[in-house]
Parts: sequence; C-alpha cells; structure tokens
Amino acid sequence: MENFEFFNPTRIIFGKKTEDKIGKILKRDGIQRVLFLFGKSSIKSTGLYDRVIHALQKEGIQFVEHGGVKPNPVLSHAKEGIEKAKKNKVDAILAVGGGSVIDEGKTIAFGAETSGDIWEFFKRSRTIDKALPIYVILTLAATGSEMNGFAVMTKEETQEKLSVSSEHLFPKVSILNPELTYTVSSQYQAYAAVDTIAHVIEYYFSGQYCPNLQNRLIESLIKTVMENTEIILQEPQNYNARAEFMWAATLALNGITRLGIKGGEFPNHMIAHALGALYDLAHGACLSIVIPAWMKWYLEKNIKQFERFAKEIFSSKDAHEGINKLKEWFRKIGAPVTLREAGISEKDINRIAENAYSIAVVWDMAEKYSKEVLTEIIKKAND
Amino acid sequence: MENFEFFNPTRIIFGKKTEDKIGKILKRDGIQRVLFLFGKSSIKSTGLYDRVIHALQKEGIQFVEHGGVKPNPVLSHAKEGIEKAKKNKVDAILAVGGGSVIDEGKTIAFGAETSGDIWEFFKRSRTIDKALPIYVILTLAATGSEMNGFAVMTKEETQEKLSVSSEHLFPKVSILNPELTYTVSSQYQAYAAVDTIAHVIEYYFSGQYCPNLQNRLIESLIKTVMENTEIILQEPQNYNARAEFMWAATLALNGITRLGIKGGEFPNHMIAHALGALYDLAHGACLSIVIPAWMKWYLEKNIKQFERFAKEIFSSKDAHEGINKLKEWFRKIGAPVTLREAGISEKDINRIAENAYSIAVVWDMAEKYSKEVLTEIIKKAND
Repeated sequence: MENFEFFNPTRIIFGKKTEDKIGKILKRDGIQRVLFLFGKSSIKSTGLYDRVIHALQKEGIQFVEHGGVKPNPVLSHAKEGIEKAKKNKVDAILAVGGGSVIDEGKTIAFGAETSGDIWEFFKRSRTIDKALPIYVILTLAATGSEMNGFAVMTKEETQEKLSVSSEHLFPKVSILNPELTYTVSSQYQAYAAVDTIAHVIEYYFSGQYCPNLQNRLIESLIKTVMENTEIILQEPQNYNARAEFMWAATLALNGITRLGIKGGEFPNHMIAHALGALYDLAHGACLSIVIPAWMKWYLEKNIKQFERFAKEIFSSKDAHEGINKLKEWFRKIGAPVTLREAGISEKDINRIAENAYSIAVVWDMAEKYSKEVLTEIIKKAND
Repeated sequence: MENFEFFNPTRIIFGKKTEDKIGKILKRDGIQRVLFLFGKSSIKSTGLYDRVIHALQKEGIQFVEHGGVKPNPVLSHAKEGIEKAKKNKVDAILAVGGGSVIDEGKTIAFGAETSGDIWEFFKRSRTIDKALPIYVILTLAATGSEMNGFAVMTKEETQEKLSVSSEHLFPKVSILNPELTYTVSSQYQAYAAVDTIAHVIEYYFSGQYCPNLQNRLIESLIKTVMENTEIILQEPQNYNARAEFMWAATLALNGITRLGIKGGEFPNHMIAHALGALYDLAHGACLSIVIPAWMKWYLEKNIKQFERFAKEIFSSKDAHEGINKLKEWFRKIGAPVTLREAGISEKDINRIAENAYSIAVVWDMAEKYSKEVLTEIIKKAND
C-alpha cells in the first residue's frame, strides 16, 4: 500500500427536501450575499429555481444571478462570473446544477480572490491559495465535483480542456436530494453511469498495485452504478435507485477509492477531455468511446487486474470478455462506443491525438502517451 | 435510503515513517505547546517515544507529558490531564496510542475548555461546544477513534462506561503508520479484528433498511479485516496486511458505512460496554462474547440480512450457519466467545444485564432492551 494523504472537509446533506435548508445553512455560516450559478433554464421549469430563491429570501440572503453555464463550461463565461462576483462583493458561491455548474462555480470562487489570467492555474503555473466558500445543490450525479477539489474548464479560443485542483475548492456544503435527479434524461443517466465507472476504474487499472480493499470498494461502486442505472432507466422516479446512484457517484471521486494505489493515472479522462474540447459531445459520451479502446490497448499491461474485473463484475473468466461486456453494457444503456456512433470522422483521429497529447504534457504523462500511442488508442475506438 | 448528513474533516496522513512529520504539522498549524498523551511504557521500548520527542523538539514544539492512560480509560486520569492542560496552557492535544489514548485525549480536549463536571457530557445532559485541537499518532488500529468524533470513558466509582460525541472531537490530523502496529500482539490483533467487524455490522443488522451500496461497502470491509487478520497472525510484519487492516479499521467507524441505513443502533457495543465496565476485559474480547449471542437472539428479526451475511461472507446458504461460522472464526483467531472462556461466572448475568440496561437508558434504547431482554441475550453468551 502506498503512502497517502486524505482530507475531505465537505459537509454532505443528503435526502428528500434538503434543498430547502440552503438559506438557513448560509445564514448559519454568516453568508450575506451569494453569486447564484445555474445552467440552462431547466431549474426554472422544475420549480427548483423558485424554491431556492424562496429559501434564500426567507433568511434574508441576497443574491446575484449568473445563469447559462454550458455543459462543457467555458472560461469566458466564468470570467463574466468573476467580474460579477467582484463587482457585487459576494461572499460565497451557490452552484445549483451538475458538475459543469459546480466546476464553473469553483473557478469563479478562486478567480474572485485573485487577479491576472486565471487560465495560468489550469496550466499549472500558478497555485490556488484562496477561494470564496462554495455551496452546492446538486441536480445531476456524475462528476463527483460536489465532494472534491477539482474543476474542469474549457478555453474556447484554444480548444483546451484542463483541470485545476486545490483544497480551497472543496465545497463547504453540498446538498444532495435524489429527487432533483428524477428529471435527468435516460441519455444523461447513461452518461452519468459511464462517468462514474470511469472515475473508479482509472486508478484501478492503471495503477501498478491496487490494495484488495480498494479493489473491493471500487467493485462495490461499479456494481451499484450498474444495478441502479438499469432500475433508473426503467423507473426514473425510483427514489432508492436514484439515491444509491447519487451517493455512489459522489464516493467515486471524493478521493477515497484511489488511496494507497501505486502510480495510478487518468488516461481515459485525458483522451475524453480532448474529445470534449473538440466536439460538442457530453463528457460521459466521450468516455464511453474512449474506455473500451483504452482497455484493449492496456489489457496486456495489467492482465491480472483485467481478469479480476471480468470475474468480479461480469462473472467471466476471460479478461477480454470483461472489456467486451462493459462495452456492450455501455451500448445497452445508450452510450456511444465508437467515434462513428458519435458522428466523428476517422480523419479526425490525428487531431484528437494532438489535443490529447497537449493535455498529456500538462498532466506530466507525455512520456507514456506519445502522439503515436494516443493515435493507436484512438484508432481502437472504431473497432 | 434515509436522509443523512456526513461531515468528516480529519486529515489522514498514512504510510511509512509518517510519524516523523508530527513536529512540522503542529508548527504549520501554529501550535506551540501540546499535552503529550500515551499509555503504557511500550512506546518507550519501541523507540516511538524518542522519535516523537525528537520531531517535536526539532520544530521547537513544547510539550507536557501525560502517560499511563489505561486500556479502558478512566475519568480520574482524564481529569488529571485536564488540570495539566489548563495549568500549562497547552494549545493542543497530542495522543500517541490506540483508541484509549485518543478517547482520553478527546475528553481532555473538551474538558480543558470547560468547567464543572465533565461526566455530564457523557450523561448527555450537556453538549460540547468547544475543544482543543487533537492530533493523533495511531499505534493500534481498532476503534476508529482516529477519524471520528466519539470518545468512550469509564467512571470507576460508579462502574459506568459511556460515550460522548461531537464534531469538535474529530482529530485535526491523524498519522497512521502501519509499521507502528507491528508490535501489536496476536491477542490484541484478534480483538482489533472483532472490534472492527462489530463497528460495521451493528447498523448492517439492526437497521430496518440497509441500502445495497452500504451492504457492499460493509462486506468489503469485513472481508478485508478477516483476510488480513489471518495474514497478520502468521506474519506480524507483513506491511500490506497491516496497512489494509489499519485503513479498513479507520473506514469502519468514520461514519461512511452507516449512511442511509434506516434506524440502526449499537446494541452489541452497549452490552460489551457493560462487560468492560465490570471486568478487566479488553473491548474486543467483550464484543466477541456478545456478538454471537446478540446475533442468535436477533436472527429472526432480520432473517434476510443474516442470509445475505452468511452468503457474502461465508458462502453459506444458511443464516444460522453464518452466525456459527463467525463465532468459529472469532475462536480461531483467539478471541473468547463465551462468558465462561473469559472467566465470568454465570451468576453475574443479572449484574451485567443491569449495567447494560443503565447504558440503554442513556442511549434511549431501554424500550427495546429491557433487563429481561438483556438477560436473555447475555444467557446466550454461554451457549
């Protein structure tokens, strides 16, 4: 088991009607004015917008709205949010939405406390030392951003999609009401399932040593995700299924599943981020295309772990079959598993590899993932 | 899934040689003087005492010693510690030991910030609103106290063993070096295994509804505990086994395994605390006697969960066999499974039931656990 440090100070408030507590929570923490972030107008049609406003007003919390966060959140919109936050002297960020809204909220939270080009933090040439407190009401369980210190943003001009990480970016409080995910479409539920599985298998496969305890925790999460996604696709309003999925998605990337693993990396996310930067494609869809391709390429490098995966998840003795069964399951729930299915031409493979390589450089993975290697992997995404 | 709140701000620093960092950690947090708690002189013979002193002196951290914490820590010794802490104006507690040392450390941490009779907090007539920061170097993985807000103390005069709980009692930093547990004896390793299993099965069995995700996490921990205890008993210096066990023991009672479970309680601990208050018996040994007895008594009240347990842990189709196999396993690793084996006379059953009942009153469980019921359960501990 490798040495590790674990710290996760986010307070989770989980369950029915918990979003109604947001006003009281902010007041208790001495917050007077928030920047209220959200994405599309869907929170207005579901009535959540009104309930949040009501909860804030009831406790006398002032707010400045910043709607229109994109599914792949973009730097320019975050910069507008930073200006609003500074101008209105807000003392906290309230992000109501999924991972995109939270990630842009985190970006604004540290951007409001600094000056200069915030992209430098994503390029890892500057380190975050301060951020406004972040409060979350989660409406889509997938990215795990509600209980970690990561944020991913896209810079449109350069088509770069990069991440930033800091202990200052852990949300102070995240409210998770599974009922708020009843309206998540089948398609986005499928993407959420892929994303969650991706979060736990990156280290599981790419690590040189994975403690049995971690293997078991990870497999527990994968089984929970698969079992409950199948229920949700049949019964979108099954509370327990939504709840188990939601909590599993949070645990999947709150730091706990990667502890003690030797040398793990995030290669699937690296390539998926390249797809996300270049095409208007949901993050989960990028991952469902990349994962089976990467697995096939990586199989021989960690054959025992792939055998374990096949056995534990699909009761199969064959490592290769484990990969195929996962790919089949992605297809079954409605996630694309080839570039073709996502409408991406084979001619683009070089371009994707180049973009992924630029991320590999920032993530210090370029030695292992050369452009040639990345091309080889991405080609497998059309097998 | 039931509504829940989860918050755990303890920073874990896990791995080889991590205890050498204690001076730097305290200095970074602005701590100048600590009360240095430990138990028996074993930390002196292993050299840990010297290494801690060296790490403190190197960073100019002053310290006041408070050694001699008992395995079932007693109130009178904690009170002496509180006086020392107040008199010397320490600004933090440094607990170097197992659960007993940590629990007394926590008691001193809030006792130093209050006046009056601190037993009132254990009687739950007063609530903790302040405590000195607590730092831990763990030498025995079992109680989970290194990553939670609980403390258990015994008041000798009245033979009461009660617990206290507060967010102020989460250690600020806990250092977990598995190497420090190499010297834990076979007997204490067995007790530690029982204690850890007890922590996860209390809610698992006594809850009216346990989400599948929680079932899986709990079973993962039980399997990890059993697998690694067997290795440790053969190879006391197997680093990975000590490490997996240590981390499993921490996860078992850091709050994560009980989330979303409906109506869980801690009946086995309740009865075990009575044994611990009345006899000079290690906590794990109290539990290994109580658990099979309680399980037999409770079996029919949650037969499905016992069937699940038998299947998942012992690949058995029979719920009753699951209980017997667990009892056999306790015996195999060297933990007592009857009162008789612990030298406790059958004549004492009434006295144990009375003590357990007094805890049931404080824990608000007296309706379900009358003296008659408790007597019935404890009698089964000699079957």
